[in-house]
Amino acid sequence: MKNQNFKEELHEIIFESNTKAGKAFDIVLLIFIVLSVALVLLDSVASFHQHYIRYIRIAEWIITIAFTIEYVLRLYCVRNKLKYITSFFGIVDLLSILPTYLSLFIVGTHYLIVIRALRLLRIFRILKLTEYLSEGSTILSAVQRSFPKIFVFMFFVTILVIILGSVMYVVEGSVNPSMNNIPRCIYWAIVTLTTVGYGDITPITYLGQFISMIIMLLGYAIIAVPTGIISAEFSRNSKKKISGLACPGCGKDIDDRDSNYCKNCGTHLERENL
Amino acid sequence: MKNQNFKEELHEIIFESNTKAGKAFDIVLLIFIVLSVALVLLDSVASFHQHYIRYIRIAEWIITIAFTIEYVLRLYCVRNKLKYITSFFGIVDLLSILPTYLSLFIVGTHYLIVIRALRLLRIFRILKLTEYLSEGSTILSAVQRSFPKIFVFMFFVTILVIILGSVMYVVEGSVNPSMNNIPRCIYWAIVTLTTVGYGDITPITYLGQFISMIIMLLGYAIIAVPTGIISAEFSRNSKKKISGLACPGCGKDIDDRDSNYCKNCGTHLERENL
Amino acid sequence: MKNQNFKEELHEIIFESNTKAGKAFDIVLLIFIVLSVALVLLDSVASFHQHYIRYIRIAEWIITIAFTIEYVLRLYCVRNKLKYITSFFGIVDLLSILPTYLSLFIVGTHYLIVIRALRLLRIFRILKLTEYLSEGSTILSAVQRSFPKIFVFMFFVTILVIILGSVMYVVEGSVNPSMNNIPRCIYWAIVTLTTVGYGDITPITYLGQFISMIIMLLGYAIIAVPTGIISAEFSRNSKKKISGLACPGCGKDIDDRDSNYCKNCGTHLERENL
Amino acid sequence: MKNQNFKEELHEIIFESNTKAGKAFDIVLLIFIVLSVALVLLDSVASFHQHYIRYIRIAEWIITIAFTIEYVLRLYCVRNKLKYITSFFGIVDLLSILPTYLSLFIVGTHYLIVIRALRLLRIFRILKLTEYLSEGSTILSAVQRSFPKIFVFMFFVTILVIILGSVMYVVEGSVNPSMNNIPRCIYWAIVTLTTVGYGDITPITYLGQFISMIIMLLGYAIIAVPTGIISAEFSRNSKKKISGLACPGCGKDIDDRDSNYCKNCGTHLERENL
Repeated sequence: MKNQNFKEELHEIIFESNTKAGKAFDIVLLIFIVLSVALVLLDSVASFHQHYIRYIRIAEWIITIAFTIEYVLRLYCVRNKLKYITSFFGIVDLLSILPTYLSLFIVGTHYLIVIRALRLLRIFRILKLTEYLSEGSTILSAVQRSFPKIFVFMFFVTILVIILGSVMYVVEGSVNPSMNNIPRCIYWAIVTLTTVGYGDITPITYLGQFISMIIMLLGYAIIAVPTGIISAEFSRNSKKKISGLACPGCGKDIDDRDSNYCKNCGTHLERENL
Repeated sequence: MKNQNFKEELHEIIFESNTKAGKAFDIVLLIFIVLSVALVLLDSVASFHQHYIRYIRIAEWIITIAFTIEYVLRLYCVRNKLKYITSFFGIVDLLSILPTYLSLFIVGTHYLIVIRALRLLRIFRILKLTEYLSEGSTILSAVQRSFPKIFVFMFFVTILVIILGSVMYVVEGSVNPSMNNIPRCIYWAIVTLTTVGYGDITPITYLGQFISMIIMLLGYAIIAVPTGIISAEFSRNSKKKISGLACPGCGKDIDDRDSNYCKNCGTHLERENL
Repeated sequence: MKNQNFKEELHEIIFESNTKAGKAFDIVLLIFIVLSVALVLLDSVASFHQHYIRYIRIAEWIITIAFTIEYVLRLYCVRNKLKYITSFFGIVDLLSILPTYLSLFIVGTHYLIVIRALRLLRIFRILKLTEYLSEGSTILSAVQRSFPKIFVFMFFVTILVIILGSVMYVVEGSVNPSMNNIPRCIYWAIVTLTTVGYGDITPITYLGQFISMIIMLLGYAIIAVPTGIISAEFSRNSKKKISGLACPGCGKDIDDRDSNYCKNCGTHLERENL
Repeated sequence: MKNQNFKEELHEIIFESNTKAGKAFDIVLLIFIVLSVALVLLDSVASFHQHYIRYIRIAEWIITIAFTIEYVLRLYCVRNKLKYITSFFGIVDLLSILPTYLSLFIVGTHYLIVIRALRLLRIFRILKLTEYLSEGSTILSAVQRSFPKIFVFMFFVTILVIILGSVMYVVEGSVNPSMNNIPRCIYWAIVTLTTVGYGDITPITYLGQFISMIIMLLGYAIIAVPTGIISAEFSRNSKKKISGLACPGCGKDIDDRDSNYCKNCGTHLERENL
């Protein structure tokens, strides 16, 4: 019984954040996550790595052990353990501690850096519990609803850049050493169409520059398409958000939550009715 | 009679996709298209070309023969043969097989690469039969409706860059070797206005840099115009979509849920009817 | 009397385009304008200039004389001559012919190139008479209405880049030779904020790169402001455009010109009534 | 009494601008601000600094003394002196004069340039009193309302670029000297995602270029998110603006012209009343 209570209390602290202890736990966790990622970034700087390698190692182990304890506690106090392990955040939690342990056995741990950087995703768990959740979910839902359209658009763009890249290869391939194969020309077409414009590959013939101009103007115009798609979704969303209530008198939608009277039939709107 | 049935069945498999055989055919076709374009891309990479030229040739012929058989079958089972040949996809289908046969007779087949890349357009035939069609057509209809406005905008931009390019030529032409003629200055003006910014041509005088700044700010502001045009079209489109009601009298779509009377036939619209 | 008729007929041909002769005149004029500007562009290319200087001169004189005759005719058949001369297109028409005559007296005609390029503006006169007018005026009116907001935004951006440029000068000025004065740093700040990104000036210190990142993200976010302003104007505009009619029965606006019945009171809408 | 009147009159001239004297004061102030910032910019140009150092010093002192007198007068005629000193513009006013006095005592005044550039902020005081105020406040309110969403979006982008930078470091770190640590890779990821594209750091491996392409297309798509957010806010804003009616019962603004009853107090709204 006592054990059960302890489990529940622990669950409240670790997974929720409406108690004082829960908030404190989240803040400590946030600091550890940011620190651990900062360490990964700094460790990759050669001069920093040479001087502080010993301290980095120690800090890395302290963080890993803390995350391991946290993982064990999470596993202990959660009811459906298998569901937690296979959940998105369960996997992210496990990936947060694996690289350091693996580095004991494997030599080339270079590729583990990406997994270490994934620790950042854990921040979303903490934010899920805050007031920013609603803002994030508004954006997410607008992006999700416009995803099929964006996907189709991206498909069009992909086919477009492959054809444009091939055209450019035929035009410049033989004279421009930086455009000597189609994949590079496609890379260039994307760099140009998206208005990134590195300038590592640029056309040198007149015809090539003329085609470039058309691609740039095209990119300048079609960037409007994803923007238009998402803008329309946000507009629709913001409209829906305002309403959501209906007058008990005439049944009409109430646009504004602060209304005291229905603007259609004049019925007095009490908060309890809504 | 039997022959007619076979024709119809074949038509169903090749042109439609609601049967199992039709879906399988589409998937095989999709794989062949992607493979054939991947071959074109890889063949253009010098190191790949040298080592695998023999295999590329064989694969190219296999794909071409497969596409030829498909083309003949399409021609066989379609009713109006001339209409198919002169249709957009009929021409794309023919262009898909021509380059390889032409390479037997002509030596410099370099320019045929672009035609080979056009095979990609065949993907749209397959997608036409999928659920993505409606998303694509929503985008397309919004883009089509905003096309006249976009065209006028692009016309303005073209005249603007020609004048800006001429101004820049007068300012930098004599001192900046990379801006020694107006066409190059126009190319630079487009690179700058569209915010691509390769950096292969940059102003070197103070006045030139000052004019650049104004062009950049201008480009940063007027990119809003095509975006605004298409956003408005998407918004209008998504509004029409919301209604989803039809008049019980004439069956026409009702745009506005608040209508009391059908604006087409005048039928009184009672809420219960809707 | 006959003279008056001739004048009116000439006016119809030159200034209007609803007659056959008027349309023909416009097309010839369009060809001359495009040719004359193409000549200016090609003349600036050194290799072209050297080989074809004689033909360019001749073509330039033919075009100038044609434009001169046109200018005289316009002046002859227009009623209020002073008003025409001082009008926008009157000045553009005069500027179209001046440079060639001036080149007879002045030697350094290099700066006249810009005036020659202004001939392009004459195209708008022809387009003013076409169906594209309404599209252009829709864009123009949306841009005009959003101009005060865009102006205020640009003012904010200008102050922002001056401050950001000064910050960057303090950070990088002493170590980065390409950022050795504030005007250059402001130029860099604009290149970065507008996402043009030439790469001719880039930060080299860690702090400088960190500030750059913030400026880029800022630019990525605030490009949304002009877009939002103009999008809102286009949305409002497209709504207004639909309406413009009112029901003779209840006086309510009619959103859709194709309505047969008022959707508010059911009055039958005859085209003559509207 | 006379003193009081003088104070009030002074307050009117310095702080307000609806009198002739107030407007004149503002214009003089504006000229001084622009001049003082122009001096800071020009002083940083080495060739200008060498030749005109003496005149710059004198001008700097004249401007500083003028600003000092202005600051003292503001302090004199304002009622709540402490509130003015600690207000935003009070601090900006003080910072406008401090650098020159500090340069008498401290040698390395290099860092004071940023403070000098902050003088530009004083322009907003003058503009606060003009007709542009309403335009600026419309933009500001739209930006402010969309700020939480933009903030969440920026947070997503930050985490995205850190992970993308880490991936790129693993891919290119060992072969590309310009990507030899993660912070630089993150810098590159931001340069690419925001479509700035300096080109000072570019991928050199095929895999790196492939990842770049995906990041560019991603950046091209997600730039639509802030734009969509702010567009939706501007659309909502412009709609509220259209109404322009107030309830005769409670005086509150009426958002919707079609309302039959005030949604605040329930007063019946007759068309004649509005």
